[in-house]
Amino acid sequence: MGDKSLLVKDLGERGLLERLQRYCPVDVVGDDGAILTTDPHKSLVVTTDVLVDGVHFSDRTTSPYDVGWRATAANLSDLAAMGATPLGITVGLSLPGDKEVDWVEEIYRGIDGCLNLYPTPLVGGDICRSTVTTIAITAFGEVSPQKALLRSSARPGDAILVTGLHGLSRGGLELLLHPNQENNLEPIEFQRLIKAHQRPLPRLDVLPYLTQIPDSIAIAGMDSSDGLADAVIQICENSNVGAIINLTNLKVFSGLIKLVGLEQAQEYLLYGGEDFELVLCLPQNHALLLVEKLGNDAKIIGKITDGKEIKIALQESPDLEKTLNINKGFRHF
Amino acid sequence: MGDKSLLVKDLGERGLLERLQRYCPVDVVGDDGAILTTDPHKSLVVTTDVLVDGVHFSDRTTSPYDVGWRATAANLSDLAAMGATPLGITVGLSLPGDKEVDWVEEIYRGIDGCLNLYPTPLVGGDICRSTVTTIAITAFGEVSPQKALLRSSARPGDAILVTGLHGLSRGGLELLLHPNQENNLEPIEFQRLIKAHQRPLPRLDVLPYLTQIPDSIAIAGMDSSDGLADAVIQICENSNVGAIINLTNLKVFSGLIKLVGLEQAQEYLLYGGEDFELVLCLPQNHALLLVEKLGNDAKIIGKITDGKEIKIALQESPDLEKTLNINKGFRHF
Repeated sequence: MGDKSLLVKDLGERGLLERLQRYCPVDVVGDDGAILTTDPHKSLVVTTDVLVDGVHFSDRTTSPYDVGWRATAANLSDLAAMGATPLGITVGLSLPGDKEVDWVEEIYRGIDGCLNLYPTPLVGGDICRSTVTTIAITAFGEVSPQKALLRSSARPGDAILVTGLHGLSRGGLELLLHPNQENNLEPIEFQRLIKAHQRPLPRLDVLPYLTQIPDSIAIAGMDSSDGLADAVIQICENSNVGAIINLTNLKVFSGLIKLVGLEQAQEYLLYGGEDFELVLCLPQNHALLLVEKLGNDAKIIGKITDGKEIKIALQESPDLEKTLNINKGFRHF
Repeated sequence: MGDKSLLVKDLGERGLLERLQRYCPVDVVGDDGAILTTDPHKSLVVTTDVLVDGVHFSDRTTSPYDVGWRATAANLSDLAAMGATPLGITVGLSLPGDKEVDWVEEIYRGIDGCLNLYPTPLVGGDICRSTVTTIAITAFGEVSPQKALLRSSARPGDAILVTGLHGLSRGGLELLLHPNQENNLEPIEFQRLIKAHQRPLPRLDVLPYLTQIPDSIAIAGMDSSDGLADAVIQICENSNVGAIINLTNLKVFSGLIKLVGLEQAQEYLLYGGEDFELVLCLPQNHALLLVEKLGNDAKIIGKITDGKEIKIALQESPDLEKTLNINKGFRHF
């Protein structure tokens, strides 16, 4: 872990940059910009995210390693949400001079840990002094123009598919905020909730399955980083369609029910956010095939309608419907 | 200018994003990432920069419009420094909730003003709450692999060429910091210094001239954003060569001498930074031709040597040499 007491201001910008360049491939650093080779038949996809100490992460619930991991996962998830394979990321870090160098390096180790799973290079960045630690990540990837997942291409009749469980990240946060609460979680449930919050996995693994679907079949989609309900709402608004979600089709993780009860668990599931699953809309037959291939907790949870309403059916009976509350999503200000 | 008293927290993230999306092309916003078409024969170039309130800019010397302009110019200059034509930029903005919406919009107007000269789209971004305003810009562009300007390809015998005057941005800052000082500047000199600081122009206009030079001629280069001396030092270190700069060849702007005297003006010229000119190293004959085409204040200022020393010749006599002081550059911590 190196010298604990070494501060950023002791090293200076040049010294710190030299240390952090270890996390970049040798051939791309040291110039005004990074040069990357791209696939000539693909389009470039770019996405950016800013995380601020005390707003998006805190030392109380998140180690610096996990801060780096989560920031990276969020950006790679945005690429997955576009159907794009990552080419690289850049990291713009601003931080106080009295921050420990080791803390900063832990962030980069976390970034590196997440990137290595996919594998994606860190191709550049900038560091500078500030009173508050801020991490700005820009990720870029490439996608065949026919395979881009847009929010605007959902059509009435499409099945709505989720690639995995929801609400776990919010449950993990609850456990971290209240570590001493009584709960009857099995160790494996406990670990899964914590990991969902600290080390989420962007669903880039889903993309190869999408390439097997004919180009003529439009797939709408986005990730559920701001919550499952928000994802459904965004797709419906952008595609000018409605949706009906069957709540009985939404699998609730057992540990989540033990932790907060069924009703709260369903709230987490719809509005918790940061699960980084994909929400995809595509014709029923292709959706069924995709669910089979993805396995695990992939599931069809409802369908796109040609109305404008987004409804949640609590049971199979259409009488018991309530409208999704658009205002429950995470607000940044 | 809109409603002066409207605050960021009154609009919320969604409302603010909607306002700022006016500055983006309609077809690229509203999804998880922006999709851009690239030239199949070119490489992707990526660069990123972070600017922090109180460190890189302040309300005292810089209006929000100019903050946006300068941040954009710095990033486009990094692309120019790689020989790359811009494809787009993303902006990650973190700011206090009690910031005026109009202030934020002025930043985007400044970004837009600079981008429109080249013309380059703003293709995405993120905004979030923080205690300190931070702007993280990532710019990406494309370059023919043979035309990339690297710091590492300078060769002994190459002429060292600057595309314009240096020290003016530092002089402009001096004027802004001490507005009431006595000086004998002509209005045109005054304006030029101020503009050099507030509205610098990245030298993307130089790139078409470089494409006229045969691909077999390697051109080394970078921009002088951290100072002319720093640029020469970086190129020499990365190319494993030395350099001799002839100080008598370095044209000093008349207004700068009036403002601070010749000696201080030469200091600004070498170490001031933020002039965003290009420093290029190429064979003498091509350099002479390029200077002629560029006109204005483009000039050959010295040559690359096969030693390791970087020397400044004060006069034509080689006795009067001093070694460039590597430590004088801008330090961020």
